[in-house]
Parts: sequence; C-alpha cells; structure tokens
Amino acid sequence: MRGILISFEGSDGCGKSTQVARLAERLRAVGLSVLTTREPGGTPAGEAIRHLLQTAREGAALTPEAELLLFAASRAQLVREVIRPALEQGTWVLVDRFLDSTTVYQGVARRLKTGDVRAINEFAVGGLRPDVTFLLDLDTGVALERLGARGGATADRIENQPRAFFEAVRAGYLQLAAEEPQRFRVIDASQPVDAITETLWKLLEEQFHGLSAGNRI
Amino acid sequence: MRGILISFEGSDGCGKSTQVARLAERLRAVGLSVLTTREPGGTPAGEAIRHLLQTAREGAALTPEAELLLFAASRAQLVREVIRPALEQGTWVLVDRFLDSTTVYQGVARRLKTGDVRAINEFAVGGLRPDVTFLLDLDTGVALERLGARGGATADRIENQPRAFFEAVRAGYLQLAAEEPQRFRVIDASQPVDAITETLWKLLEEQFHGLSAGNRI
Repeated sequence: MRGILISFEGSDGCGKSTQVARLAERLRAVGLSVLTTREPGGTPAGEAIRHLLQTAREGAALTPEAELLLFAASRAQLVREVIRPALEQGTWVLVDRFLDSTTVYQGVARRLKTGDVRAINEFAVGGLRPDVTFLLDLDTGVALERLGARGGATADRIENQPRAFFEAVRAGYLQLAAEEPQRFRVIDASQPVDAITETLWKLLEEQFHGLSAGNRI
Repeated sequence: MRGILISFEGSDGCGKSTQVARLAERLRAVGLSVLTTREPGGTPAGEAIRHLLQTAREGAALTPEAELLLFAASRAQLVREVIRPALEQGTWVLVDRFLDSTTVYQGVARRLKTGDVRAINEFAVGGLRPDVTFLLDLDTGVALERLGARGGATADRIENQPRAFFEAVRAGYLQLAAEEPQRFRVIDASQPVDAITETLWKLLEEQFHGLSAGNRI
C-alpha cells in the first residue's frame, strides 16, 4: 500500500521542524514506517545545494532566477531519490517545506512570475502532490521574536529579510491555502507546542480513519 | 554601443576552449573590449554549481531533472551577474557553452521533454540570445580519441558516457544548427587549430564589417 506524503509549511520560526519530529514519533508509535526530510536538502546533492543557497550572501547575491532553479534542483533530486521510493514502499513521508515554499518565497516575495514558478515547480516534482499540507500560521511579530531569540547562528539568507518580506510570505501562504482547501490544513502556530501536535494528530485521524489502531489506511 | 555575444558549442574534445582564447586575443588586438566565460560556472555561485555537477557521480547520481535545473541556475546567474552588464558596456562576450548545450545534452541525450527544456532555458536566459553561435562539429571517433589522450584528470561526468551518447549529442547540435541557420555557423573541427581560428575570424568579418579596423560595429 502506498505511503502518505505530508508537507509542513509556514514562515521561519513557526515551529515546523519541532512538529515534524513529534508527528513522526507518534506515527511510528502506532506502527507505521515514517521518513522525515527537509528542503532544500535531504540528499547529498540537495544538502550541497542548501549549503550553496545559505553561503551565497558571502559572495555576489544570487539572482531570484538562480535561487528558484536551485530550490527546484534540490526538490527534483529529493522527489526521485527519496520521496517516491519511500511512498512506493508504504512509508509515510513528512517533509519540512515542499513546493508551496517555492511558490510563496520566490513567487510572492521575490516577485517572479507565478506562471514561471509553477511551471518550474511542476517540472521538479513531476506531478507529485502532498496528500496533506499543514500550514503553521503565525503572526509576523511573534515569528520575528522567536527568530531573534534563536540568535545569529541559525539565521540564514532569507531570515535576514525585512519585516515586509515576512508579511508577504504569510499572506502568500494563506492565499495558497484558500485556493486548495482540500489539501491545506491551517493551524494556529501561536498555541503551545503540545496543543499543536494534538491538533495535527486529530486532523490526521479524521482524514485517515483507523490511524490510532496502526492500520495502513 | 552594445557588445556582441558569441557562444561556442560542440562535443567535448572539439576544441572550444582553445578557440575561445584565440578569438578573444584577436578581438582584443583590434582594440575591442572582450570578456570570456564558461558554462556551467563563470560566477562564484556558478563555479560552485559546476563543482557539484562534476562531483555528483561520487554520491548518488543526479537525476536528469536536477541536472537540467542546476545548469539553468548557473546560467541564470551568469547572464545577470556577468553577461548582460558586459554587453551593456559594449564588451564582446565569448562563452564556452551556452543554452544550446542544455538543449542538446539534457533534451536529446537525457531524453527530457524538449518543451520543458526550452521553457526552463528561456526562464534562465530571460530572452537573451547569442548574436552568433559557432558549432565546432567533429566526428565522434576523433572526439573520443582526443578525450582519451587528455587522460582521466579532465574527464568529467558527461565524458564518461558511452559512444552512443556522443553520437546523439552531435546529431542534436546539427539539428539545432539546421533550425536556426541565421545564428549558427557550423565549423569543421577536424581542421588544424590555426585554420579553424582563421575560419572563425573570416566569418566574423563577414557579419561585422569593419571588424579588422577595430570599429565598434
């Protein structure tokens, strides 16, 4: 039986990585095979691309076009090397950022044409779509406070953007969620961490009946 | 006055790099400002991508889709960071491989859909086209002999392909040249190096009258 693909989206600081880890733990606890990964990265080539994206600010800045193509290259590799083979083996795959990140960051915030971004996305994923996308939605002020508390070590190129950038990203995500309500689940990410995990779990139980009993749905 | 963009295409071993250097020298000798560059590469980000493409074989192989997107990313950066600014300043730009390399290698030889390859190329170059493209055409047997003589140090991922790959590349290039005869100049690359340089120079003189006198045409 085919596995389920779940993507986690939202601004930096919204708590995606934490929830990916927690949800993976709960899914494993009911006997499912689970794989977690992240974008950009998740493969040797993808991690090299991630490094390139993060260090480019030290040289000449990357153009928005090159940045989009690098994200897409990392994704093309991840889909074919990791995600598809795992799904085919019945493994649940939880991915920290996926194609909606590109649509929002490069399309909305970098002002590339939406048609170009979608076409390149489509080529990269080869028609693959998440079964569920959790959008961890957070007030921009709260997100920036959280990032500030993390300190410079984790700040990357995108985190160095002004507040207006974060606002555009948030609005872009909410727009995508409105366009595809059957795929998106919008979660209030200002809740305590435990409450968010509980919400995600309940949403999955509703969609995949028998989940708590460890049935392959 | 705007500069002129000249791309050099052909299989590995056809002598592109040598001719780029020689033609640059002659153009400089008549008083023109000349910049030479190469693909993938030519910018800090592009050289990092070139390294990634060449070393990927050591880990899991790159998918054709990821490879195409990486070439495109390098090109998007090169066009905006180097080529366009140079052309705007009146500099002649000679580039060792450009968009036709992608069309041929990824489209013909990797069997990606031509429409996808062209769309991604178009996004990468943002409408820029070479004024002239020199295709250094070489019999596959001769090309492979030359590469063998070069030895392992310069062999890269694409050079490790079987003979049929080189044949497909050659046929792909000749097809592009037939489709755009006004842009392509097909040169017999089995000639002695000096004779090739002389041919290239004469072709440029025909197209850009007054070149020998150092006029900005």
